[in-house]
Amino acid sequence: MPTPETLPVTDRSKVKRVPKRGCYDRALINQILDEALVLHVGFMANNQPFVIPMTYGRDGDRLYLHGAVTSRLLQNLEQGIDICVTATLLDGLVLARSIFHHSMNYRSVVLFGRATLVDDEAEKLHALKVLSEHIVPGRWEQARKPNPQEANATTVLAFPIEEGSAKVRSGGPVDDAADYELPIWAGQLPLKLTPSAPIADDKLESDIPVPENLLHYHRRA
Amino acid sequence: MPTPETLPVTDRSKVKRVPKRGCYDRALINQILDEALVLHVGFMANNQPFVIPMTYGRDGDRLYLHGAVTSRLLQNLEQGIDICVTATLLDGLVLARSIFHHSMNYRSVVLFGRATLVDDEAEKLHALKVLSEHIVPGRWEQARKPNPQEANATTVLAFPIEEGSAKVRSGGPVDDAADYELPIWAGQLPLKLTPSAPIADDKLESDIPVPENLLHYHRRA
Repeated sequence: MPTPETLPVTDRSKVKRVPKRGCYDRALINQILDEALVLHVGFMANNQPFVIPMTYGRDGDRLYLHGAVTSRLLQNLEQGIDICVTATLLDGLVLARSIFHHSMNYRSVVLFGRATLVDDEAEKLHALKVLSEHIVPGRWEQARKPNPQEANATTVLAFPIEEGSAKVRSGGPVDDAADYELPIWAGQLPLKLTPSAPIADDKLESDIPVPENLLHYHRRA
Repeated sequence: MPTPETLPVTDRSKVKRVPKRGCYDRALINQILDEALVLHVGFMANNQPFVIPMTYGRDGDRLYLHGAVTSRLLQNLEQGIDICVTATLLDGLVLARSIFHHSMNYRSVVLFGRATLVDDEAEKLHALKVLSEHIVPGRWEQARKPNPQEANATTVLAFPIEEGSAKVRSGGPVDDAADYELPIWAGQLPLKLTPSAPIADDKLESDIPVPENLLHYHRRA
């Protein structure tokens, strides 16, 4: 089944506040999901909302989540309860002439749906590769792959990219007309998650070089 | 009332997965909250969990949230429903010799409670200052402050720092004993949200200099 180019606009996915910033375009949603490293996963348990940061990977129309079999979080999610997953990229601060018009530049995705347990062994191993390659492309072939015991100790869930939206703000400040006369600096301060030099493990043999994918690590395409 | 040095460990706040990473120390919780720029706020509406990124500011034992009076999100939160707010700082990738032991270094805070509307005018203005100074210290005095119309168009909520926990992972990988023999690079890749040079608004008079607090912007103390 080909990927639809846009997600449907539903009552829960419709961007109501500043709707011009809302978007249902799959290419943009994928781009944000592929750049972010952390999802915030929201769910109810014992009548209490929880929001927990998790890593993930995307494979076409699904996200994979994972964790220890013993994880309460995973045990909750695999029941197929309604969840909301949100990825947020902070791109910068927007400095206006008035405090009121200060803002942030960001790209976020909010998705709604239910996760399902991945119990097929081959799909589970594939999902673990997707999760690994999402974070460090190329790492799967560099490191020791999961053995059956490790796979058994891991719960993998699939979450469909079916319903949700992206929201984006970019560009400079928009001030009230009269405020442009004020002698106040205005503009943007770009922000980006940036790697510094890799730090070798204390126990590493000194003749093992840092792989290229870590020396030149970056998130954006 | 002096700030307690630790938060109580409750059923919903107890860190169950890798409990050694859990912490209830207020100084650490404050440090994480003061460094992060975005909270992910989780709540139920129409039987559906939502997770929405928001800016915030901390003043002692409370967080302030804000948004447009017309915001559906704020209208939901001000009802005093149970919410969960989570701040996550991603500090780096942890590269182990095995895929299984790969991890991330992070510092996160998860808080539970209910928000209340700030309707006292003086407290509201104070809260707007706290929100502004959280993001760019010094900006409040540089920009035009909110006028009564702008304050009236803004909903401000207070959220108590009373129940929750921090969770922290730091340091290098921990591999299985046998894997230390493998010729695989292992270590950490530190990550940090980093500003680049400020970009002046197109409409800015060229003789207005970039303020020092933006030229030397950083989050960590």
